[in-house]
Amino acid sequence: MKINGAAYRSVWVDSTDGRSVRIFDQTKLPFSIVTLKLETVDAVAHAIVTMQVRGAPLIGAVAAYGLALALGVDASNESLERNASMLAETRPTAINLRWAIERMLAKLRPVSPEDRLTAAYAEAGRICDEDVAQNESIGRHGLGLLEEIAKRKAPGEKINILTHCNAGWIATVDWGTALAPIYMAHDAGYNVHVWVDETRPRNQGAALTAWELASHGVPHTVIVDNAGGHFMQHGQVDIVIVGTDRVTSRGDVANKIGTYLKALAAKDNNVPFWVALPSTTIDWRVADGVRDIPIEERAASEVTTVTGQTGDGRIESVRVTPSGVNAANPAFDVTPARLVTGLITERGLCAASADGLNSLFSEQERQ
Amino acid sequence: MKINGAAYRSVWVDSTDGRSVRIFDQTKLPFSIVTLKLETVDAVAHAIVTMQVRGAPLIGAVAAYGLALALGVDASNESLERNASMLAETRPTAINLRWAIERMLAKLRPVSPEDRLTAAYAEAGRICDEDVAQNESIGRHGLGLLEEIAKRKAPGEKINILTHCNAGWIATVDWGTALAPIYMAHDAGYNVHVWVDETRPRNQGAALTAWELASHGVPHTVIVDNAGGHFMQHGQVDIVIVGTDRVTSRGDVANKIGTYLKALAAKDNNVPFWVALPSTTIDWRVADGVRDIPIEERAASEVTTVTGQTGDGRIESVRVTPSGVNAANPAFDVTPARLVTGLITERGLCAASADGLNSLFSEQERQ
Repeated sequence: MKINGAAYRSVWVDSTDGRSVRIFDQTKLPFSIVTLKLETVDAVAHAIVTMQVRGAPLIGAVAAYGLALALGVDASNESLERNASMLAETRPTAINLRWAIERMLAKLRPVSPEDRLTAAYAEAGRICDEDVAQNESIGRHGLGLLEEIAKRKAPGEKINILTHCNAGWIATVDWGTALAPIYMAHDAGYNVHVWVDETRPRNQGAALTAWELASHGVPHTVIVDNAGGHFMQHGQVDIVIVGTDRVTSRGDVANKIGTYLKALAAKDNNVPFWVALPSTTIDWRVADGVRDIPIEERAASEVTTVTGQTGDGRIESVRVTPSGVNAANPAFDVTPARLVTGLITERGLCAASADGLNSLFSEQERQ
Repeated sequence: MKINGAAYRSVWVDSTDGRSVRIFDQTKLPFSIVTLKLETVDAVAHAIVTMQVRGAPLIGAVAAYGLALALGVDASNESLERNASMLAETRPTAINLRWAIERMLAKLRPVSPEDRLTAAYAEAGRICDEDVAQNESIGRHGLGLLEEIAKRKAPGEKINILTHCNAGWIATVDWGTALAPIYMAHDAGYNVHVWVDETRPRNQGAALTAWELASHGVPHTVIVDNAGGHFMQHGQVDIVIVGTDRVTSRGDVANKIGTYLKALAAKDNNVPFWVALPSTTIDWRVADGVRDIPIEERAASEVTTVTGQTGDGRIESVRVTPSGVNAANPAFDVTPARLVTGLITERGLCAASADGLNSLFSEQERQ
């Protein structure tokens, strides 16, 4: 998507040397737009570990390029396997990371060392292009929902969308998942406006979603996570669209902590609640999400302290609680399928149910 | 309640001179415990305007003492009326403030100027004592609810209470409203544990409720406002108790933004949701709270910036959004009565309904 009129992806090969990998340092957003030039596999691993890149699809794509950088130094079988393992361990819970590394290994193992480097860059490029195409498809299917809402309104009347956390282009290679339909609607001339949940504790909404939307020129308003229910009560939200970290075989949705509360408010006010996802996010082995999806407990310091920019431009972390306080920090919650109006996948829309998912995916695909 | 073992009220007359008014500077909490000595009516007005004192009942009590300080300088009729008007305008929307000033005027107008000073301190003291008695009564009635929960548990098993914002002793003269039953249960030896919603944007939970509970020794855990639904889904909340800024004649509840989302989650998980209030909070003229209670829109800067303490002890405000972002900041929301299990008043418990309220208040009282 665009930053001040210029189109970007969130990862690309440096045009001056044709081999280094360029990313935005997401730890600096939204306060500084800094691109990093990653020249070694170790620099890639460091970028993933320190969350300079984040978002499951993006991490997979960057790791694929990391393997290509490693092969530029040593294209032997031993180097391929060793660097693949090292990269896969940078974020052990991210499913897309291992999927991307496995795909690279399957492609590169049969290739002779002298041809591997070229093959690696080509495959990493395909992973990126496929991610973009998949998200574009999610965007097109979601756009239909927004067009339906527009039909019920006066010409040019505002379409209000609420989103939680960041499921935008900066979490993928381009377009994003939940934000893809919004970018498409905006680019098509619809008068979209986004309520951006700040998304405590890590503030991905206030920092990343607001930055993305501002950079592309999409009208938006940041609100605290407490406020969405009030706006739904007063008819100021037409649709909620969020991303997801895992969807179960019956349509339960794990996503950033607080998503469940917005789904409850949407249900209570007859606001449609949609979840955007690539099909790789579906976990066919799990049905009951509240019972069976393990919820990551993150550091208490994310709750007790907030990082931002001071009036004179310094980045500071400030504690908002008494010192020594206990804090709990579950990173995700699970929204039961009964609260989800439907799923937006690259294959199309479906109900958040076993029947809905089965209508899009064959029995073989669901293994 | 107690701070490190010593009992305090949130406002008292200085024992050394018998006339100055002592308060805690709430803009410094929880980072520093600073008491202020207010020696003039102007100092009192400044303390209210700058939110060094906050919480409707406390503001009323402090303003009453402010009028006494004014009369210590000039006890004439003119001084009485002028200072009463000035104090009443410090926070024009706080109902308790005007109630306290009106009560002082009604008491002092018939008194001769030479007797007014003594009468003023006596009446301000009565306002404080009555607030404490009322909250103590709310606490006793609420304690019964916690005792019922304890009966269904193993001896000594933890009772988990979730609260939002700060309806504690520091918002009143003592005890608080929502926290009064919790203090009583703790003091009675029950194993209570409080989930403290941080309560963005002003963080009254993270700052004030956590400080109060820590100071009195009540076990508690701070969580982001997004997390409460998750804990309710997993059986880790036995009861929700919150305060309120206004209750309608049919039991709709206006309270800090985000309260409605917690009420929805409580309903979805069969967790009792109770609201603690003095009867002065009931607005008998309004029935439909969502439609008819005006919601204060506060400064966007409360959303875009967060104030806290740096590692080296400085108080800093940091911006968490891109600069120049739009932000909306409704300060309250309304929880429909259908989501409220019941009301805890100084008269006793009742259903959140016209019938429930009518069982506690006579037709004459409801005018």
